Amino acid sequence: MDDHRSSTQLNPEIIVLGPPTIFVRYEREFCSRFHVLKPWESPLPLAQFLEAHAQNTRAALCGGMFALSAAVLHHLPSLRMVATTSAGLNHIDLLECRRRGISVANAPAIFSADVADLAVGLLLDVLRKISAGNRFVKNGLWPKQGGAYPLGFKLGGKHVGIVGLGSIGLEVAKRLEAFGCTISYHSRKKKPFVSYSFYSNIHELATTSHILILCCALNEETHHMINREVLMALGKEGVIINIARGAVLDEKELVRCLQHGDIAGAGLDVFENEPHVPKELLVLDNAVLSPHCAVFTEESFGDLYELMSGNLEAFFSDKPLLSLVSQDGDM
Amino acid sequence: MDDHRSSTQLNPEIIVLGPPTIFVRYEREFCSRFHVLKPWESPLPLAQFLEAHAQNTRAALCGGMFALSAAVLHHLPSLRMVATTSAGLNHIDLLECRRRGISVANAPAIFSADVADLAVGLLLDVLRKISAGNRFVKNGLWPKQGGAYPLGFKLGGKHVGIVGLGSIGLEVAKRLEAFGCTISYHSRKKKPFVSYSFYSNIHELATTSHILILCCALNEETHHMINREVLMALGKEGVIINIARGAVLDEKELVRCLQHGDIAGAGLDVFENEPHVPKELLVLDNAVLSPHCAVFTEESFGDLYELMSGNLEAFFSDKPLLSLVSQDGDM
Repeated sequence: MDDHRSSTQLNPEIIVLGPPTIFVRYEREFCSRFHVLKPWESPLPLAQFLEAHAQNTRAALCGGMFALSAAVLHHLPSLRMVATTSAGLNHIDLLECRRRGISVANAPAIFSADVADLAVGLLLDVLRKISAGNRFVKNGLWPKQGGAYPLGFKLGGKHVGIVGLGSIGLEVAKRLEAFGCTISYHSRKKKPFVSYSFYSNIHELATTSHILILCCALNEETHHMINREVLMALGKEGVIINIARGAVLDEKELVRCLQHGDIAGAGLDVFENEPHVPKELLVLDNAVLSPHCAVFTEESFGDLYELMSGNLEAFFSDKPLLSLVSQDGDM
Repeated sequence: MDDHRSSTQLNPEIIVLGPPTIFVRYEREFCSRFHVLKPWESPLPLAQFLEAHAQNTRAALCGGMFALSAAVLHHLPSLRMVATTSAGLNHIDLLECRRRGISVANAPAIFSADVADLAVGLLLDVLRKISAGNRFVKNGLWPKQGGAYPLGFKLGGKHVGIVGLGSIGLEVAKRLEAFGCTISYHSRKKKPFVSYSFYSNIHELATTSHILILCCALNEETHHMINREVLMALGKEGVIINIARGAVLDEKELVRCLQHGDIAGAGLDVFENEPHVPKELLVLDNAVLSPHCAVFTEESFGDLYELMSGNLEAFFSDKPLLSLVSQDGDM
């Protein structure tokens, strides 16, 4: 510990929990600005590592998959600030943070445009068979089968139902309006600032939509919200895109509907048990799959690094955090 | 001939030349509304077939790849109307049509939205590695390689140069503005009705653009317009999308630039020698290829069938053609 500290004694100390992908990709940069504790490199269990090395640590960086529970916080008595690389906060015990006087900074909306872009890209791929066409040409089938490549479907004129009209859903809507789609949405509450049709009932939205795009948070209300009934209401020509979380969809029912032609196609960036994908999906031509990479762009990762390191530096300089989460109850 | 006529004697006679894809896909429908002459089903060479069977034929349907030359027209002395399934007209001898009093109807802009959609789909695929991600997941690599999937590039904020700002180019621009791109263009003349930056020099457009999208007609001026110099000006992070015609690009130079990393990627729906694609392209991960299917949607094929059969019926009913080509010189 002393040896480690000596080389970076001028830098403030942070603990990285997870570690989040942004730390893995920007480790050198983080380590040049902070003295970084890396519990995953230690043979000690996390609690013991924290007891041994992090009793004076005042700031932490964590990802959206790390459960920052009251039990973990208990082992970090000096912690006063957490920067999470996610927009969502349901992995953090915010009540306990408030009780301990810990400020939380998150990454709101940095990735909204990228996620919306991937949603549109997956949708265009499903409708226009882009991945399949690429495979067809690259496998040398075009000269053999001539002009017999199957027709796709037009995006313009389609009724698109957006499930969850947060920052991502709004970005999706803006893009699809430019393609000539008609936008409706489902969310907990009607949004006063948009003119899109609101459906309080997901089943009704599916009935009136050609395409459903899932952009909502995963919580008790939305877990398996897209079940068999909703998929059947979407119908034989319906397409579903999921860039939210895998468990918003009942994956088994989705597989069955795709296999039986009860819906036309799906574009999925997220799955219930990542990185494991049901093997039935792997062989379906009407499913386009991507490895939860909706946020994976060089540009946004650069922005996220700047935001996270900027929040940490602001904390150590007693300046206002760049993306402080309001802790007055309604997050 | 008499036998054939007897079953459809109430229907007006048309000759189909090519045949165009729309006829192949809607043959039953065309044959229920018209008495159709099908020269490709006859063992006779075309000229002899026309001499034997089409001396009284007043209307023709042809595709964009059929050369309706003065020589062919010479064998169709009664012809007074041609419906072409293409927007472009460079396969038709318009001067000879005018001399013979033949009206021409085309299919302007029916497919512009579909072609623009595929351009955006190919671009999103190249930038966000959608086909590659689909292959990665479907080949079962995700659980093995974990979160190591490579980063893509953000579309928002990019400078997009559109080459040819006709109906397709304008549709592409409208879509990409919604993604936060900055649009510039190159065309023969500055368009007074748009605010996008105009570049009379393709090399300058490539220098200032991250992405070039080819939407122009193929003619002597545009043949191999995108040569090595233009590709090098686009640069190492540049992406090129071609939904125009293969020969607008120097394909050999493109292959070399992709192989050497002189540009970052390409999305290609068209090739110089379709359906043959240079075998070097087939193995390049930074090229997304599609089998000239930019117009292949069920909806637009339905619209095209309605437009073509509507034009033919209008002609036989002495009504104005639905999409008459003005023959006053400037097409």
